[in-house]
Amino acid sequence: MPEWEKLYAKRATDIKASDIRELLKLTKRSEMISFAGGLPNPASFPVEDIFRISQSVLLNDANGALQYSTTEGYDELRKFLAARERSVGVIANEDNILITSGSQQALEMIAKTFLNPGDTVFLEEPGYLGGISAFKLFQANFETIPLEEDGLNINILRKKLETAKNKPKFLYTVPTFQNPSGITYSLEKRKELAKIAKEYDLTIIEDNPYAKLRFVGKHIRSIKAFAPDHTIYLSTFSKILAPGFRMAWICAPKDVIRKLVIVKQATDLCSNSFTQRITYELLRRGLIDRHIPWIAAMYKEKRDIMLKAMEEHFPPEVTWTKPEGGMFIWVTLPEYINTKEMFTEALKEDVAYVHGGAFYINGGFNHMRLNFSYCDNEKITKGIKKLGKVIKAHLRDQ
Amino acid sequence: MPEWEKLYAKRATDIKASDIRELLKLTKRSEMISFAGGLPNPASFPVEDIFRISQSVLLNDANGALQYSTTEGYDELRKFLAARERSVGVIANEDNILITSGSQQALEMIAKTFLNPGDTVFLEEPGYLGGISAFKLFQANFETIPLEEDGLNINILRKKLETAKNKPKFLYTVPTFQNPSGITYSLEKRKELAKIAKEYDLTIIEDNPYAKLRFVGKHIRSIKAFAPDHTIYLSTFSKILAPGFRMAWICAPKDVIRKLVIVKQATDLCSNSFTQRITYELLRRGLIDRHIPWIAAMYKEKRDIMLKAMEEHFPPEVTWTKPEGGMFIWVTLPEYINTKEMFTEALKEDVAYVHGGAFYINGGFNHMRLNFSYCDNEKITKGIKKLGKVIKAHLRDQ
Repeated sequence: MPEWEKLYAKRATDIKASDIRELLKLTKRSEMISFAGGLPNPASFPVEDIFRISQSVLLNDANGALQYSTTEGYDELRKFLAARERSVGVIANEDNILITSGSQQALEMIAKTFLNPGDTVFLEEPGYLGGISAFKLFQANFETIPLEEDGLNINILRKKLETAKNKPKFLYTVPTFQNPSGITYSLEKRKELAKIAKEYDLTIIEDNPYAKLRFVGKHIRSIKAFAPDHTIYLSTFSKILAPGFRMAWICAPKDVIRKLVIVKQATDLCSNSFTQRITYELLRRGLIDRHIPWIAAMYKEKRDIMLKAMEEHFPPEVTWTKPEGGMFIWVTLPEYINTKEMFTEALKEDVAYVHGGAFYINGGFNHMRLNFSYCDNEKITKGIKKLGKVIKAHLRDQ
Repeated sequence: MPEWEKLYAKRATDIKASDIRELLKLTKRSEMISFAGGLPNPASFPVEDIFRISQSVLLNDANGALQYSTTEGYDELRKFLAARERSVGVIANEDNILITSGSQQALEMIAKTFLNPGDTVFLEEPGYLGGISAFKLFQANFETIPLEEDGLNINILRKKLETAKNKPKFLYTVPTFQNPSGITYSLEKRKELAKIAKEYDLTIIEDNPYAKLRFVGKHIRSIKAFAPDHTIYLSTFSKILAPGFRMAWICAPKDVIRKLVIVKQATDLCSNSFTQRITYELLRRGLIDRHIPWIAAMYKEKRDIMLKAMEEHFPPEVTWTKPEGGMFIWVTLPEYINTKEMFTEALKEDVAYVHGGAFYINGGFNHMRLNFSYCDNEKITKGIKKLGKVIKAHLRDQ
């Protein structure tokens, strides 16, 4: 047997099984109340629509649905998504759209296309775990910019751009209902970021999976709308249709799409033809748009239940965000509490979360991310009560 | 607008749009008879079975089919594939199996996991284009071993192993109905390769997409069966079910699977849950196995028609392989004919192929690959006649 560890490439040697992944395995017990994952609620899946449309696709275009598709993706779907971009003020046609196997593939392909080992990536802190892991796989160096209630700290961003030894290849951001924090960038900060992008010729990766899941307040235009030439925009059907379909897309300048297509050709030839066509037909018939308010209403109720339970059961030393949409609440505990260590105690109480350290390059252990989309309503209240008990047991007497 | 070309990573700068891809675009005209692609015939898709089973999956397990799956893949599918490996003498359980989004993803993940820039890969010559492109993306250096009628030239392989400055990370081979040549490794050569793998601690990537499409002769055991600890085995449902499903798998030592799972987590989280479940249900009910002989019979007929037309219309200066299965015939022309240059003439006659150079690191331009699975039977005869005319026009008077 070869000594496999010695044969792996440096990039593969450096990435380890994430402890999150290992921890999540412990949350599979049926009695567990898990706020840890980032899963949509199964009740959000439009099963009947998918059932009917799957039949329709196979009856009308089985050859297309079962054959290889072009690497760029199903043309009709790309045209539809481009038209949708135009409707929100982004100049785009199908040449600006690439269909990917989920947003994680989009992140990985961007990392693969742009990052030499040691290249700098600017990152929100806290930042999305999946982005971090894709960039780490391609041996990025990270510079982190603190996240505030209305988006990145712009002063620190400017300072880092002025003083950074190495110009960043890009800035990665999830500006709407951010994962993990739940915060949303204000319109002002989006415009400011777009201005900075042009000023410093900075590429922005705008990852926007949750924007359609808004419960309160008004839709805010994407950063892409203000800096189209500098923004590579990502979105997905995972949160508004079904993650099992692995359907997402990139909207970017044509040159970038052309390069990404060449990379995708060597990566997996093309995305799933069957689920591309089902997704397109659902879109075309308005079934996804009709369904979204229903998902948003379900998640709003869950968020409200969770926030209410937190008010009731969390001690006053603890604070948290009140997201206007999406799937996550971000909790800040006293500095002396380590949520990674506390996790063992939480598991004993059959309740799980993701510790804040998972979203930081360094530190962050006095935070935790709570998902409110997945659990049944009764379990949310019950789980928060348990978690409150665990937290209280970790408070120091003042 | 950023100067994108300056921002790309070296690996992405180095890969160019393949001229094959560009050439294939020219073959989309409806009057074109294309032997160029590598597509299954749409008539081979078991549409009715897929229709019924899609319904059944959504009725019985919509939550599983529409939710994220584990990165490893759907457990039942992995168990089934492991049992199948055991039935052909390979010791395996589900921990040896990883589901991938097509074999191209398997190749890319293997390249990503094993190859540092400049690492050596041993390659059959001619070799599979998709493998070459995945390894090129990770900046491999290639050492090529000539392919003979019954498999690799073992003497040259041994010599290269003895003298190579850098030990190869792996040897990549398609031992059954090889793409592009159509040849099949003899049992002796497989055993010899397995022996060499153990002797030199050489990792073998055995890519086996076509084995079930045998028209004549007897099934030959995989290299994996003789050197299980040294072989990473790849297979796919693209040729026996539907490439649009993007369903393939890797069977490898547990340590390797564990590392590939970590890499896949950062690559795309998981494969398509819906088509994983459809594929499993088709397998479990025996519908894929029942269907394979039907596909093989269809392709055998097409191969026979193509071989017969070649006998009739190709000049005596030209030779070709007579594959016992798969989808390709490999044609050898006089050395002075350049099939890349001749392609323009072929296009004028509305017939297309892939020139041999696409499967060589250097040279190979007096060959061409012909696909016989995709075209209608009448078109095969018609296209070969046209191609014979083009070739004859390129012959020099002796």
